[in-house]
Amino acid sequence: MGKGIRLLVLDVLKPHQPLVTELALGLSELEGVDGVNITLVEIDKETENVKVTIVGDNLNYEEIVRTIEEFGGVVHSIDMVAAGKRIIEEGETPQDKLEEY
Amino acid sequence: MGKGIRLLVLDVLKPHQPLVTELALGLSELEGVDGVNITLVEIDKETENVKVTIVGDNLNYEEIVRTIEEFGGVVHSIDMVAAGKRIIEEGETPQDKLEEY
Amino acid sequence: MGKGIRLLVLDVLKPHQPLVTELALGLSELEGVDGVNITLVEIDKETENVKVTIVGDNLNYEEIVRTIEEFGGVVHSIDMVAAGKRIIEEGETPQDKLEEY
Amino acid sequence: MGKGIRLLVLDVLKPHQPLVTELALGLSELEGVDGVNITLVEIDKETENVKVTIVGDNLNYEEIVRTIEEFGGVVHSIDMVAAGKRIIEEGETPQDKLEEY
Amino acid sequence: MGKGIRLLVLDVLKPHQPLVTELALGLSELEGVDGVNITLVEIDKETENVKVTIVGDNLNYEEIVRTIEEFGGVVHSIDMVAAGKRIIEEGETPQDKLEEY
Amino acid sequence: MGKGIRLLVLDVLKPHQPLVTELALGLSELEGVDGVNITLVEIDKETENVKVTIVGDNLNYEEIVRTIEEFGGVVHSIDMVAAGKRIIEEGETPQDKLEEY
Amino acid sequence: MGKGIRLLVLDVLKPHQPLVTELALGLSELEGVDGVNITLVEIDKETENVKVTIVGDNLNYEEIVRTIEEFGGVVHSIDMVAAGKRIIEEGETPQDKLEEY
Repeated sequence: MGKGIRLLVLDVLKPHQPLVTELALGLSELEGVDGVNITLVEIDKETENVKVTIVGDNLNYEEIVRTIEEFGGVVHSIDMVAAGKRIIEEGETPQDKLEEY
Repeated sequence: MGKGIRLLVLDVLKPHQPLVTELALGLSELEGVDGVNITLVEIDKETENVKVTIVGDNLNYEEIVRTIEEFGGVVHSIDMVAAGKRIIEEGETPQDKLEEY
Repeated sequence: MGKGIRLLVLDVLKPHQPLVTELALGLSELEGVDGVNITLVEIDKETENVKVTIVGDNLNYEEIVRTIEEFGGVVHSIDMVAAGKRIIEEGETPQDKLEEY
Repeated sequence: MGKGIRLLVLDVLKPHQPLVTELALGLSELEGVDGVNITLVEIDKETENVKVTIVGDNLNYEEIVRTIEEFGGVVHSIDMVAAGKRIIEEGETPQDKLEEY
Repeated sequence: MGKGIRLLVLDVLKPHQPLVTELALGLSELEGVDGVNITLVEIDKETENVKVTIVGDNLNYEEIVRTIEEFGGVVHSIDMVAAGKRIIEEGETPQDKLEEY
Repeated sequence: MGKGIRLLVLDVLKPHQPLVTELALGLSELEGVDGVNITLVEIDKETENVKVTIVGDNLNYEEIVRTIEEFGGVVHSIDMVAAGKRIIEEGETPQDKLEEY
Repeated sequence: MGKGIRLLVLDVLKPHQPLVTELALGLSELEGVDGVNITLVEIDKETENVKVTIVGDNLNYEEIVRTIEEFGGVVHSIDMVAAGKRIIEEGETPQDKLEEY
């Protein structure tokens, strides 16, 4: 069983260089990180908007932000966070289905 | 097998500070909590609307509300609650599918 | 293997007080109930429309209705019921998919 | 391994009384029935249109129709039937996806 | 491990009598058939359009067509066939998703 | 663990005769083939457009094309191919969801 | 448990020759590759736009790009990358659902 922060989904804006592959490697080597997924949401001339999902145990949010900034990125928002012994998914309710339309 | 309240999904309005990561940690350390998921639904200049999903055993609703309020948040509604030996999902019926449109 | 009524999904209209958490606890303590899920469908000034899903063994429908009424609620309709040795899901057929549109 | 009719999905029109809970119990006690699911599709002043899903082994279609009629119901159509050693689902093909729109 | 034809999905037009339950039973008793699913797609005054899904080992297509014809039905098209050691599903590709709209 | 080509999804145009059942049998008997799925996408007076999914180990693409041609078919495009020790699915990214609309 | 880059999804533009089957084989034989999936997204007179998904352990991005270029292809973008001990999927949040419309 884990503790502390177990999952983070961050909305990040970054320059094209360094590549997302290098950012993913950098984040994956931080203390407590099991895995990192970086997904391209939008790309334009200068920058790319990516979604960074990080899963692990007792994740250190400040250290993660520092690493993203070292790679030239900026965290726009924390779209999801999970904490505690187990990683809990968002409970889907009718409110969500109605809000989709 | 558990008892009492096993799952809560709350619609919460909170200021940007403290961060959702701190609220998630605070809630995850309460008695009976297995895990917490906080998902960003909407964000504007002053506040952010988040969905807080909490899973555990014999959860104490009043204590959870107090903790959210200590972090500056307000519970707008209880979108879902599950109680009893097993955590039951919402039974999806044709009524739901029709209401989505 | 169970018998009798194994699952009920009820469309219920209730006042804001007492809270759905108390109704969920009340229902979860009835004979034969394994778990209760109450999901908020719609909320307005005076009342809230909720969907109550109850799973268990040899559930007593009349006792469940009485309990809901003790918490000030009214059962509008039985949206789904399952009975017998096994809990069977609704068989989805092309008719359903066409009726969604 | 079973044999004969293993699953039936019936489109049924019934009066409000007796309740679907009683019909579900009645059907669940028939020879070879493992489980019954009755889902409300549409309700109006006098009657309610329900979908009755029955799963079991060597189900007796005539006996099932008789029971539904004893509860005041009428079988409008057989929406799905499965027979044989194993319960087979409908094979979804591109034709179905196109017909949905 | 099986061989030959392992799955067939047939688009069939049949009269209302005999019932689909009898056709399902008839097909389920053929050599190599594990299970049959007959799903109602459309029904009008004289006839009903059904989808017949048959799963088994070394299925005999001609014998299946003969049986359907003995029950008054006509095979309009073979919507899907699977053959070989394992039953393979249709590989979903972006082409399919685009064709749905 | 396998090697070489493990999965092929081909867009094929073929005459009505010979039937897809015969083509499926023909392909299923080729070296390294575990299973074949042929799904009808579109049918008109002279020809039928089918999707052929083949799964196996070290599949021989040229031999598969030859076989399809022997049955009167033409391969329009290779919609998907998977190769290597494991059969990998297409990684779904936000780009795909946006392209669907 | 793996390390380094574990999954890549690349948007690639390539000429019709050599075939995607040959590119898939070429990529599948690289160091650390478990499996490759190439899916056709769009095809026109001269070129084809494909999505290349590669899964493995400690994947070498530069070597993969070189191989794609040897087959005449160009990498337009890195749509997804996963790194670390475990392959993490993209965390789906309400933001994604809203962005789909």
